[in-house]
Amino acid sequence: MSDLAVKCAENLEKIRLKKPLIHNITNLVVTNFTANVLLAAGASPVMAHAENEVEEMVGYAGALVLNIGTLTDAVVESMLKAGRRASDLGTPIVLDPVGAGATRMRTGAARKILAETRVSIVRGNASEILSLQDEGSKSKGVDSLHSVSEAEESAMALAGELGTVLAITGPVDFVTDGVRVIRVRNGHSLMPVVTGTGCAATAIIGAFAAVDPDLLSAAATGLAYFGLAGEKAGQNAEGPGSFMISLLDALYQLTAYDLKAECRLSLE
Amino acid sequence: MSDLAVKCAENLEKIRLKKPLIHNITNLVVTNFTANVLLAAGASPVMAHAENEVEEMVGYAGALVLNIGTLTDAVVESMLKAGRRASDLGTPIVLDPVGAGATRMRTGAARKILAETRVSIVRGNASEILSLQDEGSKSKGVDSLHSVSEAEESAMALAGELGTVLAITGPVDFVTDGVRVIRVRNGHSLMPVVTGTGCAATAIIGAFAAVDPDLLSAAATGLAYFGLAGEKAGQNAEGPGSFMISLLDALYQLTAYDLKAECRLSLE
Amino acid sequence: MSDLAVKCAENLEKIRLKKPLIHNITNLVVTNFTANVLLAAGASPVMAHAENEVEEMVGYAGALVLNIGTLTDAVVESMLKAGRRASDLGTPIVLDPVGAGATRMRTGAARKILAETRVSIVRGNASEILSLQDEGSKSKGVDSLHSVSEAEESAMALAGELGTVLAITGPVDFVTDGVRVIRVRNGHSLMPVVTGTGCAATAIIGAFAAVDPDLLSAAATGLAYFGLAGEKAGQNAEGPGSFMISLLDALYQLTAYDLKAECRLSLE
Repeated sequence: MSDLAVKCAENLEKIRLKKPLIHNITNLVVTNFTANVLLAAGASPVMAHAENEVEEMVGYAGALVLNIGTLTDAVVESMLKAGRRASDLGTPIVLDPVGAGATRMRTGAARKILAETRVSIVRGNASEILSLQDEGSKSKGVDSLHSVSEAEESAMALAGELGTVLAITGPVDFVTDGVRVIRVRNGHSLMPVVTGTGCAATAIIGAFAAVDPDLLSAAATGLAYFGLAGEKAGQNAEGPGSFMISLLDALYQLTAYDLKAECRLSLE
Repeated sequence: MSDLAVKCAENLEKIRLKKPLIHNITNLVVTNFTANVLLAAGASPVMAHAENEVEEMVGYAGALVLNIGTLTDAVVESMLKAGRRASDLGTPIVLDPVGAGATRMRTGAARKILAETRVSIVRGNASEILSLQDEGSKSKGVDSLHSVSEAEESAMALAGELGTVLAITGPVDFVTDGVRVIRVRNGHSLMPVVTGTGCAATAIIGAFAAVDPDLLSAAATGLAYFGLAGEKAGQNAEGPGSFMISLLDALYQLTAYDLKAECRLSLE
Repeated sequence: MSDLAVKCAENLEKIRLKKPLIHNITNLVVTNFTANVLLAAGASPVMAHAENEVEEMVGYAGALVLNIGTLTDAVVESMLKAGRRASDLGTPIVLDPVGAGATRMRTGAARKILAETRVSIVRGNASEILSLQDEGSKSKGVDSLHSVSEAEESAMALAGELGTVLAITGPVDFVTDGVRVIRVRNGHSLMPVVTGTGCAATAIIGAFAAVDPDLLSAAATGLAYFGLAGEKAGQNAEGPGSFMISLLDALYQLTAYDLKAECRLSLE
């Protein structure tokens, strides 16, 4: 039992006790699944994206989760409004830069959110995360990387430049604040076969950030809890459909005891 | 077997026979789940929110369901257009004021819909329902209430003022037209852990209102059917994921016989 | 084992090998389910509808799927932009004219997409498909038809006029390019009780069109695979909820061997 596994268990218990409101401005693909994942964990999700209510809504929230998966210009404006207000209030902001690097609109929107709000944590795959560096960045772009270790060095440099925690998810998750690194070894191979598992992991990180002021720990313990739920779901799943449903059940059923025993987090 | 349980069974049989078209202008979180719930019950859902087709679409509908869960100004306009046309046609309108009382935009939109269209039934939790009274209302706001019985008195007064049926859902549902009261004692504790169960209940009320001209009875019997499906779903559910799926199965499987035997409705 | 069943198996194996990107501009009801269906089949879905990124996104795609189920004017503009670019690139376009014939907006949008882009395949029910003929069409409207065989003759004439493959789904699917006809006899009676199964079938056709240049064969083999998955799902389903989940599992589990043995396709 590692200290981080104990922290993970404590964070989950705090979420279930406090039921923090998590304000999501997210994409149309995962809206329902994200809300269900947060409810299963014990948090209180609210999805609100209208320009004329996001500032009021974020005032009640324990964390703001921004996900650019199905952007429009109007949604970007709402994200910036909500993000600026969250920054003023000191409310953690978690960004999921879905598809950054794939189209100019997405890369531009992600960078603008990073520039104009105080983002606490970014979660994505390696390609999305490394697309966030601007032209003058000293870190290397994803196309120029030759190995996982180069990507990790680049991510550490970028985390330092941006002043945020970066969480790169994959078979082993890599979480860094630019100085410290935590690796998370929970997860299941069916996760990428269900749409929105990455986005849902980001929302779970939001819930953990609402109760854990150490943002590196919040990101890593959130991913470990979510990954462990995936492992449980995978035990009896017959494919991605039953896996998705069992994942919601597992998020609800997992106990602090389970997390202490089975979360595999290592600080380097 | 109560008269109301018999009415509930008759209403469900009418829905399965007539397959009424239920026109939903609803929120982005529950669009899919709402459509599936209506299909499982035997109704014909249509989701259409474009300003330039809602008036035409509502002309084919047996009921119009308006849900303000992820409002934008454009959607409010569409709701008002569809609602005015439904009012002219005498088509029942069911309103779900999601989050009314939480932000000014939501409270304002819900009150505007009530003022400008002929809403038949409103379903929400106590806080949402009691936020609908305007400044001059003689009923008390939710913050000033000290007990469930005060909330119920306030809801009865408000139903009379608005000229609608109000359905407040919770462990026991309270349905009133200002004069009569029906309590519904069906449901399951996992319902609030699945997003959109309240919204889905509202849509089911829409289907019942399409076949039952007594709006108090339509609201109460719709809630009893939905709550009983929740009880069935809860018998073998391992968490909110399997509960949500079993709820769809139960809505489809329940028979008129089941409703007569197990719906717990009491008129006071 | 028919030649077409072998082709169906080969197409599925190509999808799983190449993982073609399928760009969907689809409706709010089925966004999540469509993405999950494509992932379960082995394709790579992307949902992107913003006017300022669809042209860039469709450049990466193996097929473009347009679905008008919850249209707005802005979405129609994005569909036309993406469709014109796909036409220039020679990328297959698959259109699902949800509700065409029901409202003027939908009929008009479907016809405009057909007029301004090079649509490869249209999938819908008989009423939707036959509403696509314009005033001068020699084929007959759905209201004037007296039999299935008249509808089929009309569809063949329309396919020739439009220069597209038309796939009319029902208990037996009818697929024609105006000259050839393939009938598909796979499917399950619970399919119409789950929202979005038609839309998901359209997306699967998109994935098959990304790997099979014979568009008639792509449409028919896609429907056979999807229908067979429905049969498998129906074997143990207790209602539409468990059916929907088992359908995702079956799409994932079905092997080339299964398709060769059990797909029922006949060329006439």
